[in-house]
Amino acid sequence: MLIVADNLQILDPRVERALAGLDAEPIQMLVRQYEAAGAEAIDINAGPLPRDAGRRMRLLVESIQSVTDLPLVLDTANPEALAAGLSACRNRAIVNGFSLQPARLEKVLPLAVRHDTEIVGYLLRPDGHVPADAAERLALAVSLHAAALRAGLSEERLIIDPVIAPLAWENGLAQNRANLEVIRSLPELLGFPVRTMAALSNLTTGRGPAAKKRLLERVFIPMLAAAGLDLLLVNVLHGETVQVAQTARRLMRESIFAWGAAADPPG
Amino acid sequence: MLIVADNLQILDPRVERALAGLDAEPIQMLVRQYEAAGAEAIDINAGPLPRDAGRRMRLLVESIQSVTDLPLVLDTANPEALAAGLSACRNRAIVNGFSLQPARLEKVLPLAVRHDTEIVGYLLRPDGHVPADAAERLALAVSLHAAALRAGLSEERLIIDPVIAPLAWENGLAQNRANLEVIRSLPELLGFPVRTMAALSNLTTGRGPAAKKRLLERVFIPMLAAAGLDLLLVNVLHGETVQVAQTARRLMRESIFAWGAAADPPG
Repeated sequence: MLIVADNLQILDPRVERALAGLDAEPIQMLVRQYEAAGAEAIDINAGPLPRDAGRRMRLLVESIQSVTDLPLVLDTANPEALAAGLSACRNRAIVNGFSLQPARLEKVLPLAVRHDTEIVGYLLRPDGHVPADAAERLALAVSLHAAALRAGLSEERLIIDPVIAPLAWENGLAQNRANLEVIRSLPELLGFPVRTMAALSNLTTGRGPAAKKRLLERVFIPMLAAAGLDLLLVNVLHGETVQVAQTARRLMRESIFAWGAAADPPG
Repeated sequence: MLIVADNLQILDPRVERALAGLDAEPIQMLVRQYEAAGAEAIDINAGPLPRDAGRRMRLLVESIQSVTDLPLVLDTANPEALAAGLSACRNRAIVNGFSLQPARLEKVLPLAVRHDTEIVGYLLRPDGHVPADAAERLALAVSLHAAALRAGLSEERLIIDPVIAPLAWENGLAQNRANLEVIRSLPELLGFPVRTMAALSNLTTGRGPAAKKRLLERVFIPMLAAAGLDLLLVNVLHGETVQVAQTARRLMRESIFAWGAAADPPG
């Protein structure tokens, strides 16, 4: 289970100022901090990028990869920003992402195919709404997989995100139990070891005490890991959360487990 | 998921002294402490009970149920102690437990049948050894279920314990991944909603720093809960561990989840 930092947001005032002043240093400091905290990939959440999208994304990618070799997750639905980011990216790149929404299928998916990168596909209806249950999610996964192959993507480049539901939703609990089932079922359903990703912060979106949100995160991560999750998008500055994620994947991996060895490299 | 305190041990010097002096008070103080910490059942670990087994177990049961209505898990393989405990027990009683080992089948299982109580059955080979993998565990579960029915037990009285393996064992990780699979599979395999129990302390038996052991517990509990575990035998004085168990079962239960409500009763 790869720990992907969700921390870098273009709407973060520190990042905004750095981009406005063409100053890479503050961005690089943040990325070094995330890597030190356990990040194994960096999600670049480029937000709406209203203007000058290509230049801003290129600057972000170049700034980051000058200080780290970690994979970069290019998190934007803006095709101009995505194209510029992919052209600039020398690190392993993951496009985040597409769905059955027509604009994403037509504008985002082909960029991943052209650049031969991995891409995250969300289990959302073509109108962008969240599916009702596990059965509908699995049906959407079949359609998503088919659409990716039709567009020319190699299936091993596909990563599926079942979309974690906020627990504040009336059916949030049932949705997330369905998500665990979907993560567990997808490889057999699609007939290859398809990888999955989940964005943990969705779980506790909304009001509520921070300590309770962190506890829910720490409890849900082992459930995701046991279901077979491959990429966990998470705030890496939540130290205990990262520790739980690292421990959960150790419990799930195939090799011999040495829990006495505190200095184990993450794996 | 019922939280069962594993704290009460006859070998605890405080308990030994209380039994020697026929003084119930120290035992009752411990039980009140466990209940305040979140225990929803009390495991009475009666150890080897070398002499005077019946009288000691009876005193324990009577002392405890004079201060609590919680279910009592009578944890002994000594038939004399068990018979005395069951005769004294007015609270809901659970026998812990039997296996395919002949002595347990012949001496322990019939007592649960006679007293019409629940009983925990371990997935161990007839020679007492731990099975090799999930397939062997499932085969043992089928035999255990058949043996319980042959002895006259109602199947809804059966609770299966797949036996958590110490992570310090060379194959401990693989054993425990198998246990998760077994917990998930048993209801479908046996064709009724058979309940399962797991003793968490087995996971970290052996040397190792306490903080790391507690972290492993907190990570494994949500995995057990997501697999469908019904009874968790745990040290209830590990506050964070209990908090994780309570949160994990909230994430798994069917009713609507209100994570904003800090004062939710456990359920």
